[in-house]
Amino acid sequence: MAGFHVRSVLVTGSNRGIGLELIKHFTGKLNPPEVIFATCRDPEGVRAQELKNLASKHPNVVILQLEATDSASIKSTAKKAEAHLGGTGLNLLINNAGIMPPSTLESATPEDMLSVYNTNVVGPLLVTQAFLPLLKKAALGSNQKGMSCSKAAIVNISSVLGSIEKTPELFSFVPVVSYRCSKAALNMLTKCQSMGYKQDGILCTALHPGWVKTELGNFQPNADLTVDESVSGLMKVICDLSEKHHGVLLSWEGNTLPW
Amino acid sequence: MAGFHVRSVLVTGSNRGIGLELIKHFTGKLNPPEVIFATCRDPEGVRAQELKNLASKHPNVVILQLEATDSASIKSTAKKAEAHLGGTGLNLLINNAGIMPPSTLESATPEDMLSVYNTNVVGPLLVTQAFLPLLKKAALGSNQKGMSCSKAAIVNISSVLGSIEKTPELFSFVPVVSYRCSKAALNMLTKCQSMGYKQDGILCTALHPGWVKTELGNFQPNADLTVDESVSGLMKVICDLSEKHHGVLLSWEGNTLPW
Repeated sequence: MAGFHVRSVLVTGSNRGIGLELIKHFTGKLNPPEVIFATCRDPEGVRAQELKNLASKHPNVVILQLEATDSASIKSTAKKAEAHLGGTGLNLLINNAGIMPPSTLESATPEDMLSVYNTNVVGPLLVTQAFLPLLKKAALGSNQKGMSCSKAAIVNISSVLGSIEKTPELFSFVPVVSYRCSKAALNMLTKCQSMGYKQDGILCTALHPGWVKTELGNFQPNADLTVDESVSGLMKVICDLSEKHHGVLLSWEGNTLPW
Repeated sequence: MAGFHVRSVLVTGSNRGIGLELIKHFTGKLNPPEVIFATCRDPEGVRAQELKNLASKHPNVVILQLEATDSASIKSTAKKAEAHLGGTGLNLLINNAGIMPPSTLESATPEDMLSVYNTNVVGPLLVTQAFLPLLKKAALGSNQKGMSCSKAAIVNISSVLGSIEKTPELFSFVPVVSYRCSKAALNMLTKCQSMGYKQDGILCTALHPGWVKTELGNFQPNADLTVDESVSGLMKVICDLSEKHHGVLLSWEGNTLPW
């Protein structure tokens, strides 16, 4: 943690749950980032009030509107972020926005499957495409050796529910078929990104936040972590990320999970 | 192979490539299935001519129109198949229809991602939902112990390109990001199906057909297998499937591949 010097970070879906808590934890660090982009779909909506309150106390929190499945919205947000960064790059992109509607083998519909895939996989793909120039700029502008979040990194918030290997352990309690398929695909996207962006020095990792009590759904019989506990763990993992975590899925406790 | 007694089989995308070859191999067996449903999007189109020629020589080949991403089309086809089976079930469903357009981290678009996911993942989900009653009927009507394709089975044609673990080996040659993400999701779907349908006695397995020279794309620098060689291997694997292959990804040579 001693080496944490993230100058700029962006978190999608930051008006609630894990996203909001990540923003809180970044603002609470001893050496907080100079710029914390907190993006959400509707910054003027009622559900963004807590984020707005937080931003009013922390001038380094910059709220930006971003609909993570809308290319035009994402590109527009990337331009605003670029202007705000004033010639410097973006160190850390956290693709956190996601949905988990109920879904079983029997109930899954094309609309459900495509909508969840769009938000949970296509969203992170598009956001990363749009912010890639800023991530590359951060990597190029860093004199650090190796890979880290202080240099340039993409963190995709995934889930152990996307682990095919682990599926037998929890399927009967938490089927969420559309979510599971999307997170397995997000894990694959993370691995592809780790291959494609390695030469640019951009670290790419997928994280499982644990069984958290969030608004995402009530399908978590074992949800025994508070959002604060989960994000405390995630923050430690994020700060400690290095080459050896490139292209892997880590739990909030820092353990490597199987695909 | 001695135990191969598949009374009925259905193969999607059977007018070309691996699907067509599977139909050929089923007709060529010493004890061929009594009913071989060969489905494709456009049975009256030019690209279905070879399948029609084959069916004209083998009365057990029944060509059915099926658009694997259209719920109504699938349900209609399932009704026709049910009528044709005259009260018996379907032993073996092979979800083969798939697409692999070029796609990189840079070039992947929402349209590309969603279209490939729709065909390669949502299709197999919907087709399986529609034919599940017939698969269950076959399982119930069988006096065989254990699981096998002669009893009741779902085979999803996947790919080693959907293996997250294997991605580093081939990513630079064959990025196909949208395809990789879809096949990782299909592998997850297969695992979910293996959990959900275990109690029904329905075997669920994903298969990698090898690097085959098909019309699917020209992204296969190592495509050194003919379709016949690949399908000869797949047929042997399919005929030998048992409980130990439930919920796994197997190559055309019968080797278990990592997720």
